[in-house]
Amino acid sequence: MHIGILGGGQLGRMMALAGYPLGQRFTVLDPAESACASDVAGHIHAPYDDNAGLRQLAEQADLLTWDFENVPVAALEGLGDGIAIAPPLTALAVGQDRLAEKNLFTELGLGTPEFAAVDSRPDLLQAVERIGLPAILKTRRFGYDGKGQAVLRTREDLEPAWQKLGGRPLILEAFVPFDYECSVIGVRNAEGDFRCYPLSRNLHHNGVLSVTAAPLAAPAAVAAQSQQWMERMMTHFAYIGVLTLELFVVGERLLVNEMAPRVHNSGHWTMDGAVTSQFENHLRAISGLPLGACDALGHSMMLNWIGDMPAAGPFLQIPGLHWHDYGKHPRPGRKLGHANLVAADLIQLRERARQLQPLLSSGAWQRVTRVLGLS
Amino acid sequence: MHIGILGGGQLGRMMALAGYPLGQRFTVLDPAESACASDVAGHIHAPYDDNAGLRQLAEQADLLTWDFENVPVAALEGLGDGIAIAPPLTALAVGQDRLAEKNLFTELGLGTPEFAAVDSRPDLLQAVERIGLPAILKTRRFGYDGKGQAVLRTREDLEPAWQKLGGRPLILEAFVPFDYECSVIGVRNAEGDFRCYPLSRNLHHNGVLSVTAAPLAAPAAVAAQSQQWMERMMTHFAYIGVLTLELFVVGERLLVNEMAPRVHNSGHWTMDGAVTSQFENHLRAISGLPLGACDALGHSMMLNWIGDMPAAGPFLQIPGLHWHDYGKHPRPGRKLGHANLVAADLIQLRERARQLQPLLSSGAWQRVTRVLGLS
Repeated sequence: MHIGILGGGQLGRMMALAGYPLGQRFTVLDPAESACASDVAGHIHAPYDDNAGLRQLAEQADLLTWDFENVPVAALEGLGDGIAIAPPLTALAVGQDRLAEKNLFTELGLGTPEFAAVDSRPDLLQAVERIGLPAILKTRRFGYDGKGQAVLRTREDLEPAWQKLGGRPLILEAFVPFDYECSVIGVRNAEGDFRCYPLSRNLHHNGVLSVTAAPLAAPAAVAAQSQQWMERMMTHFAYIGVLTLELFVVGERLLVNEMAPRVHNSGHWTMDGAVTSQFENHLRAISGLPLGACDALGHSMMLNWIGDMPAAGPFLQIPGLHWHDYGKHPRPGRKLGHANLVAADLIQLRERARQLQPLLSSGAWQRVTRVLGLS
Repeated sequence: MHIGILGGGQLGRMMALAGYPLGQRFTVLDPAESACASDVAGHIHAPYDDNAGLRQLAEQADLLTWDFENVPVAALEGLGDGIAIAPPLTALAVGQDRLAEKNLFTELGLGTPEFAAVDSRPDLLQAVERIGLPAILKTRRFGYDGKGQAVLRTREDLEPAWQKLGGRPLILEAFVPFDYECSVIGVRNAEGDFRCYPLSRNLHHNGVLSVTAAPLAAPAAVAAQSQQWMERMMTHFAYIGVLTLELFVVGERLLVNEMAPRVHNSGHWTMDGAVTSQFENHLRAISGLPLGACDALGHSMMLNWIGDMPAAGPFLQIPGLHWHDYGKHPRPGRKLGHANLVAADLIQLRERARQLQPLLSSGAWQRVTRVLGLS
C-alpha cells in the first residue's frame, strides 16, 4: 500500500520508518525543500493547497493521511471520492479550530476549561468579566507549541494581548491551576476496534513539550475517564487512526485542553516503550490491519531535543536509552530529535535517569526530576 | 554520518531503517535495479567490482560496510586508505572461503567438523578415506543458503557430486549428526567493547533458515563456550561490527559450522525481542557509538517468509507479533519477509505460537512445534 502524507516533518518521517516493515511505501507533500521525512519517502514539493500537487499525491497513493493538522480541509475535500483519506476530515476540521474543539468537548460531556469566543474588544471585555483572570487568549486557528497565545494576568494585559492577537478569531480560556498535564492517545480502525495507550505525564517548557513519562500512575477513576472520553470522541467522528487528547489533572478532576487528530509528540515514548508504537498503530488503523497492543513495556521517559541536538554517544552509554534524530538542521526552538529511556519498572527508570544529570542543562534536569519524582 | 552499504538486500534495508533514528544516512551499491534497500536509501546501480561505482559510493559516504559477504575484497582494497571500512577486510576475506574459515577455527581452538581441501578427484578420494561417509562436499567460495553443496552418503555419490561441483576449489566436511543448530551473534567496537546476544536455536528447511527461537535454553557451559569462541574470533580480527557464528550442538559439544562477518538472518528476532537490534548495534559499532544492551526482552520466535508473502492481517491479530516485509517481488526460494513473535516468557510464547497453526503450512507448523517444543 502506498500512503501519501500531508506534511513531511518528523511525524511523517517516523510514520514512514514504522510503515516500511508493514510493506508500505510513502510519499509526503511538503512545501519545505528540506522536509526531513523526504530522507525516507518520496517528496512532492508543493504548498498544502496546491491542487496539482495534491492531485499528484492522490494519484501516487492509495490512501492519504497527515502529520500535522493545519492542512486545508477544503483542498482535501476537493480531491473528491476517488481517494481514501483517514482520519475523517470532520475531525481534522474540528482539530483546526479551538472554539469548535471546545464546543464539541462540551457537547459530548467532556470537562474542559471555561471558554468564550472573542472576535472584538467588547467580546474580550465580556469574556474576561465572565471567566475572570488569569486567563489565556488564543487564536482559534493555526496555533501550536504555544504560538498565538497571550496570558492575561491583570486588566493591564488586555490591550497588549489584543494588539498582538486581535483581528483574527480568538478564544479566551480560563487559566487552570493544574497539578500536572497528561495525555491519552487512542487508536480506532474501520471495524470500530478501539484501544488506548496508558496515560502519559507531560511537562512543557516555553510552550513546547519537553519531557514525557509513561505510564502515569493516575487514580483508576482518572484513567478510566480519559478512556471513556477518548471513546466518545472516536465514536462521534467514526474515527480511523490515532487521536490525541491533551489533559489537565486538577486533584482527581480531568479537563481536556485540546485534541490532535494525529500521532503526537507525547506518544513518542511508545516507539521503544510499548508493544506497538503509535506510528505503527496509526498505519495499521488507516490501512485496515488489526490494531496492535498498546501495553507499555515497563516504564519510559521521553526527552525532546529542541534547538540543538546533543551528541548521541554519552547518552547511548545509558542502558535502555534509545535515540531518535530527525535529520533536521538546528534552529532555535525547532524539534530536532528525542531520546527514549526505557526500564523494567519505575525504580529502575529513576536509577537510569540519574545518569542523565551530567548530560543535561540544569533546567532540563529539573524537569526530569519533577516528572519522575526524583529528589 | 553517511554510510555506504555494499549490497542493497533486506539486510541493508533493515540496517538503514535502524540507522535513520541515529541520524545516519545511507546509500547502497547493488547491481539489481529493484534492490529492496533502495526504497529507503540512495542507490548506486553498479556491479560490486565496478571501480567507478565504488568510488562514487566512497565519495558520498563517510564509512563503508556490507550486507552480504560475496563482495570482492580486492575492489574494496583498491579504494585505499581514504575511506573507512568496517568490519575489517581480513574478516571478509576469511568469511568468503570455507577452507580459510575452518583453518582459522582450528588455529584458534574452536571445535569444527572434520574437513579437507579438495581440488581434484584424487583429493576427494583421499578426503573421503580420512573423514568417512556421510560427508558434505561444498564449494569453498560463493555458497550460501545451501547452494553449491552435495551430500555424499555412499561411494556412488562421489562421481555425481564431482560432476556437479568439480573444477572449483572445494572442501569436504564430515556430516555431523547434530541435535540442533544454533548461532551466536557478537558485536565489538573500536574500543574493544564486546557483547553477545543470547544463543538462538535455528531450524533450516531446504538449506534456508526457516525458524529461529531465542534465547535458547542451552547448558551454561555451551553458552559460555560460544561466547569465548566469539571473543577469540573478534580479538583475532580486531573486529568492528556484528559477527555471526553458526553452530552445531551435539550433546554438550559445540562445533562451529561457519562464520558470517555481518548481521545475520538468525538475528532478526533481535529487532523486536532484544533491547538493541543487531542492525542498530552493527551501526553503533562501526560508527564509534557505545554498544547497546544485547539482552532479550522475554522470549521470541522468528518465522521466515520464503517464496511468497502471506497477507499480514491474520498474523497481526496475534498479540506480540511484529511484521517485516522486505518490499520484494515474490520468486520461489526468495526471502521476502519475516514475522517476529515476542512474549514475556516461553510459556506465553508457546500459547501465542499455537495461534499460528491455522495460518501456516503443515511443514512450517511442524518446524514451529520442533523449535518451541510444542506437542
